[in-house]
Amino acid sequence: MTAPSLAVAQRSLGDPSISYPLVPPLTRGCPKTSTDALAYPLEVDYDYDRVPAGLFEQAPLPDIARWAPLLPPLHAPTLGEGGTPLLELDDGVYLKDESRNPTWSHKDRLNRVTVSAALAAGAPGVVVASSGNHGASAAAYAARAGLKAVVLASADSPPAVQSFVRAYGAKVLTVDADRRWPLLRDIVDELGYHPVSNQTVTHTGHPYGPEGYKTIAYELFAQLGRVPAAVFTPTGYGELLYGVWKGFTELRRTGATTDAPLMFACEPAAGAPTARALADGEPATIVDAGPSDAYAILCTVGGHRAVRAVRDSGGLALPVGDDTMRAAQRELAGQGIWQELSGAAGLAAYRALGRTFDGPVVCVGTSSGFKDLGVGTRPAEVLTAPTWRDAL
Amino acid sequence: MTAPSLAVAQRSLGDPSISYPLVPPLTRGCPKTSTDALAYPLEVDYDYDRVPAGLFEQAPLPDIARWAPLLPPLHAPTLGEGGTPLLELDDGVYLKDESRNPTWSHKDRLNRVTVSAALAAGAPGVVVASSGNHGASAAAYAARAGLKAVVLASADSPPAVQSFVRAYGAKVLTVDADRRWPLLRDIVDELGYHPVSNQTVTHTGHPYGPEGYKTIAYELFAQLGRVPAAVFTPTGYGELLYGVWKGFTELRRTGATTDAPLMFACEPAAGAPTARALADGEPATIVDAGPSDAYAILCTVGGHRAVRAVRDSGGLALPVGDDTMRAAQRELAGQGIWQELSGAAGLAAYRALGRTFDGPVVCVGTSSGFKDLGVGTRPAEVLTAPTWRDAL
Repeated sequence: MTAPSLAVAQRSLGDPSISYPLVPPLTRGCPKTSTDALAYPLEVDYDYDRVPAGLFEQAPLPDIARWAPLLPPLHAPTLGEGGTPLLELDDGVYLKDESRNPTWSHKDRLNRVTVSAALAAGAPGVVVASSGNHGASAAAYAARAGLKAVVLASADSPPAVQSFVRAYGAKVLTVDADRRWPLLRDIVDELGYHPVSNQTVTHTGHPYGPEGYKTIAYELFAQLGRVPAAVFTPTGYGELLYGVWKGFTELRRTGATTDAPLMFACEPAAGAPTARALADGEPATIVDAGPSDAYAILCTVGGHRAVRAVRDSGGLALPVGDDTMRAAQRELAGQGIWQELSGAAGLAAYRALGRTFDGPVVCVGTSSGFKDLGVGTRPAEVLTAPTWRDAL
Repeated sequence: MTAPSLAVAQRSLGDPSISYPLVPPLTRGCPKTSTDALAYPLEVDYDYDRVPAGLFEQAPLPDIARWAPLLPPLHAPTLGEGGTPLLELDDGVYLKDESRNPTWSHKDRLNRVTVSAALAAGAPGVVVASSGNHGASAAAYAARAGLKAVVLASADSPPAVQSFVRAYGAKVLTVDADRRWPLLRDIVDELGYHPVSNQTVTHTGHPYGPEGYKTIAYELFAQLGRVPAAVFTPTGYGELLYGVWKGFTELRRTGATTDAPLMFACEPAAGAPTARALADGEPATIVDAGPSDAYAILCTVGGHRAVRAVRDSGGLALPVGDDTMRAAQRELAGQGIWQELSGAAGLAAYRALGRTFDGPVVCVGTSSGFKDLGVGTRPAEVLTAPTWRDAL
């Protein structure tokens, strides 16, 4: 039932004249343009001339297979990812509620695609280094596809998230953060597991991953009936930001629209590698990171994709402090929407920027509040003789 | 934008010849047919002759307002409830994944409707007695609508769920279970808060509530292109079961189909008031309940709606033990779907029944695994010198 993929090659983000065959996925970045200090990611190229008419006129329902022509081949079964609601807040700003995915974060869009690559490669399983959402999502899609999964988790993720990561039957190895990446490489090299998280000095991740995120742009186009003026995205390595941006460029390239939004990389001020790279005019950079409770997007290692999305769209990198994110999180809760602290970074940065735009503004809310630090740590005190006055 | 409601009256389930005006909602059951030992609920009646052509041919997207003609008037803003995916399991059985709602349970469909009633009544807020999903969902919809919310919670709900219930800014009063209902009545009587949970001796709840659940039937009809042969629903008081059943009867009544499914009430064996009432030939009953970890559907107080849905459809009440539910929960996790233990009761009962049906079988999965007992209670042990062998 799924339409065939029009994917034809992997193209280097370091030099767009360099391309590689579509398979095998180059999970350690572009070999020709990367150096010891900087790794360039790849993206997927398509035969855009053959995009079916009407592709972008579909109802934005779950299951990203409806966009199969512009995705890498989908071998993994769906869990009904995507098709998330676009909620209008009091002042007309929109929240794209990605907590409505199968494992309650945006990561499901990526893992449908990367686990498909693992199946195509004939790998016995997938391996992922993750403190939360990415690991659980990879485990869920691997389980659904009949593959094993190894999650290299960190001990400091919230206890409820630890239950979440273990829920899908994956082998969860809890290790110190600095041991995760060498171990991931070993599991790839020794066991032939397919890596669905990063292995390079600056972030490149899986070359197919951001393709899954493109579907957010397609859905927004269907939901708004147009391209938004600006998109504010919680940003760690920039895979989500770049994916959404790429989706919009494809809408333009295939003639569905002539517009494109400004893309805003909203990252914790405690790290903010995208802002630093842009300020220094670098393709990507590595920073020291201070403490932040927005653990899902706190990164020391930046990625070139984030820099490209901001630069090519004319947007900005917007570092935001935890207090600003907390205020946005409270604002959303006051509208009935419980986002993880990281998930409120988009709205936080938009509020802090204080700029108006000539068209709809979309903040991507990436994940459910259940994944936050502090969840489950404040047991309630029982009222012994309650009266209705206590309700006032 | 929302089409007008065709709701015309409240009709007694105790005697269908008795009806009342649509407002005010009779939140303490049918006054004429209820007794000190047994309360009969009400349901909403519509002007079915005026149902718009093509109503049931819509895409099953989020926001139940698309079914507004067959719902009570919707005044509360949407959080994008409904439009949840229907996932096919290995053997062709379907799971309707209600963990994909705004607060990650089916309760959001009900609370969009009941909070609308609170707004129409001019109440300053809503009050709800709930150990989890219902309370958080009511709090979310109240916040979205600009109403206050009081949640009467119990101390024994899981710690992560306590964070969840508090997330939306409601006033949460944690009280002993037996104090909840008198306190709820006081808050209704003294403060004029609108009750969105039960106040009667056997369960009647809010007369409009199950109307929200009807939309599951409409979505299943759109998703399957037909009516299922059987629906297995986790059942506590039976509001969900009855709502889904009523939706199917409306599809038949309005000529969209001539079929209707068998409805199976899947309830914890430790309580099982629906099975008891059916066995005794009673309209509803009250039972003692033993321990069960399926706390979201463990009820001592039964409701007439559950009895009616089972009896009118030709289905059964199916008590299931915790071990059976746990096996179904593991089965779902092995397919990449993390349901709360209660949410797996439908699949558990279907597996235990071992019967085949002449058509699609749907199990309703009501809620996310994040809400379970035990979540967040097993911190991980850190591997000090991990090697790839640990992944085997």
